[in-house]
Amino acid sequence: MNFSYPFLLKKKKSMLSKFRLGTLRQRHSLLSTMATTARSCSLSPEGSASSLRVALCQLTVTDNKQTNLKTASKLIAEASKVHKADMVILPEMFNCPYGNDSFPKYAERCVSFGGNSHSSSSSDINKKKVTHEDLMKIKNIENEMPSTYMLSNSAKSNGIYLIGGTISEQEQEQEQEQEQEQVGKGSKSGKKLYNTCLMFNPNGDLIGKYRKMHLFDIDIPNKIRFIESETLSPGNGFTCIEVQKKQSIWKVGIGICYDIRFPELASIYRHHFQCDALVYPGAFNTTTGPLHWELLQRARALDNQCFVMACSPAKNPNLSYPVWGHSAVTDPLGQVLATCDDKEHLLVCDIDLLQVRNTRDSIPISKQKRTDLYSLPAKL
Amino acid sequence: MNFSYPFLLKKKKSMLSKFRLGTLRQRHSLLSTMATTARSCSLSPEGSASSLRVALCQLTVTDNKQTNLKTASKLIAEASKVHKADMVILPEMFNCPYGNDSFPKYAERCVSFGGNSHSSSSSDINKKKVTHEDLMKIKNIENEMPSTYMLSNSAKSNGIYLIGGTISEQEQEQEQEQEQEQVGKGSKSGKKLYNTCLMFNPNGDLIGKYRKMHLFDIDIPNKIRFIESETLSPGNGFTCIEVQKKQSIWKVGIGICYDIRFPELASIYRHHFQCDALVYPGAFNTTTGPLHWELLQRARALDNQCFVMACSPAKNPNLSYPVWGHSAVTDPLGQVLATCDDKEHLLVCDIDLLQVRNTRDSIPISKQKRTDLYSLPAKL
Repeated sequence: MNFSYPFLLKKKKSMLSKFRLGTLRQRHSLLSTMATTARSCSLSPEGSASSLRVALCQLTVTDNKQTNLKTASKLIAEASKVHKADMVILPEMFNCPYGNDSFPKYAERCVSFGGNSHSSSSSDINKKKVTHEDLMKIKNIENEMPSTYMLSNSAKSNGIYLIGGTISEQEQEQEQEQEQEQVGKGSKSGKKLYNTCLMFNPNGDLIGKYRKMHLFDIDIPNKIRFIESETLSPGNGFTCIEVQKKQSIWKVGIGICYDIRFPELASIYRHHFQCDALVYPGAFNTTTGPLHWELLQRARALDNQCFVMACSPAKNPNLSYPVWGHSAVTDPLGQVLATCDDKEHLLVCDIDLLQVRNTRDSIPISKQKRTDLYSLPAKL
Repeated sequence: MNFSYPFLLKKKKSMLSKFRLGTLRQRHSLLSTMATTARSCSLSPEGSASSLRVALCQLTVTDNKQTNLKTASKLIAEASKVHKADMVILPEMFNCPYGNDSFPKYAERCVSFGGNSHSSSSSDINKKKVTHEDLMKIKNIENEMPSTYMLSNSAKSNGIYLIGGTISEQEQEQEQEQEQEQVGKGSKSGKKLYNTCLMFNPNGDLIGKYRKMHLFDIDIPNKIRFIESETLSPGNGFTCIEVQKKQSIWKVGIGICYDIRFPELASIYRHHFQCDALVYPGAFNTTTGPLHWELLQRARALDNQCFVMACSPAKNPNLSYPVWGHSAVTDPLGQVLATCDDKEHLLVCDIDLLQVRNTRDSIPISKQKRTDLYSLPAKL
């Protein structure tokens, strides 16, 4: 493993040296004392008035859902307690192996959250939520919605904003019924599955739910073929949350993995929701990852002059999908602030709202768009 | 100077060795035998059935217009005769120093070409042209429109498509009159200036004229302030040309420098004009160049799955504007095929239409756009 020392937290150097030559398995056995190696960009003790400390959990997903939930829970706690993160981000499909075989098997219900509307406008942000208390009243939530249960509790007990990666979500019964009424009974069999991200505030309240809008259907001959739409259905709504730190309010837009290939989604978050940051839980593979994962993050960041945070699972040779890893944080100038390889890492980084403002003032591309010649892409 | 040998034309190695340790001035004294160093990506002797050989002239601009026109003319001839290029590209403001002082001083008229319409549709491409013969009938064209004269003759005598970089264009008298009629006489004084690209086919016919749509107005404190709109006016139309090689027809969209920061322009060329390649004559500076010049080219190429060719002048320490150089050719996967430093170079590269088709088939993002949720950006 190749550590880049300037990126390491100094106070953790002694602990990290234990892991440097360790295998993935050896490191896993140490999860109870320290979940994973930690990497960070330069951190200030208190952060500036406009800064936010984010932690991306590039965790190793196994084929055991309970193990995955425990790993995520431990990493969230470490990000909060040890690294003082304000916002923690999990990767795509953090609780199940990425694959069409797994999506139905690991699926679970999530609570309804404002339906699947096209019309989430920026004025609605954070107006609606499902409180932690209401979530905990759901009958048998621990077994029926184990991911929602863990995520809400983790956000609350650590007092952090949590962008809960994604899980395989089984359609609600009432949603299925509504759809069957619209298209005619009997026209659909079985509940739909979605690739879904849940977001929580520091009270553990559910403040957002986003379903992957662009499904990963590609076919590169002799390299990779993956047709996510064989098992999953696409979401139909945009999701932006508000994250408050001191006097600063961040607007954060959510996309999932393949969504990052679509500049329109990022542009809508920037121009219609006024987002300062975009978060993409993702799981690029070893064919397109080296080519495109970082380039797409830098492109979305530069074109929209916002921070981009993209969180992947770590590589797990025991699973069939070859994940690329390389989670990263990119600034509004398109510069990568922090990144890592494909091993398990906790990537910690301070991002500053002032940099968003300064970049937009000095290179004012948003004001210079030729709206007389083209419209900004949105049907909201 | 650091040469990357795999990128050099083998047959030129012996000549190139003369230049390796040469200064810019020494190399300039050799212009009569070989205009500049040549770099290329791997070239096949004949090219494939679907390939096109492009040459980007990263030439040194001086404060003498006649010298600049001669340099460009020589490099175009070399690209054609020595390297067998099918299409040659010049940089932004190839005939005058880049600066608000220079734009009025070096400005010249160009012929009218379909006005400044918003409504250039893809079906109109190459339907209109001004023939070489008609150009040569213009009274005193050699002195009144020296750049048009040189470009048309160079395209014809070398039998190449020519994307003539840009020049400072003085508004036509009839255009000024039309505008004054619309806004009221006396409301404007003096003719407008544009940053204009002229395109020619192998017969020397003018087949396109594009005026920079997004003007370069930025202010990065203590680094660079440049307000192009102090002297220039923006264009209001899109320009796509057709380039034929054997049985293949390429659709090539044109932007100029700062235009590359606007993904909407590239997206319109991709989705409304069906472009396979984008060409940006540009002159990024040493502040934003290292950060953004290549990243923007790769972003435009990847998001639109097309080739991007961006041609800069070489650095000239005798001029005040600090040009970044680094002309490049990028493929539809966002990979840089050929690039160079800030010295004078002729960058030669084969690009293949088949790669555009294959990339779009294997990662079909164009078909996967959620046009039910957002509109593609265009008012045509």
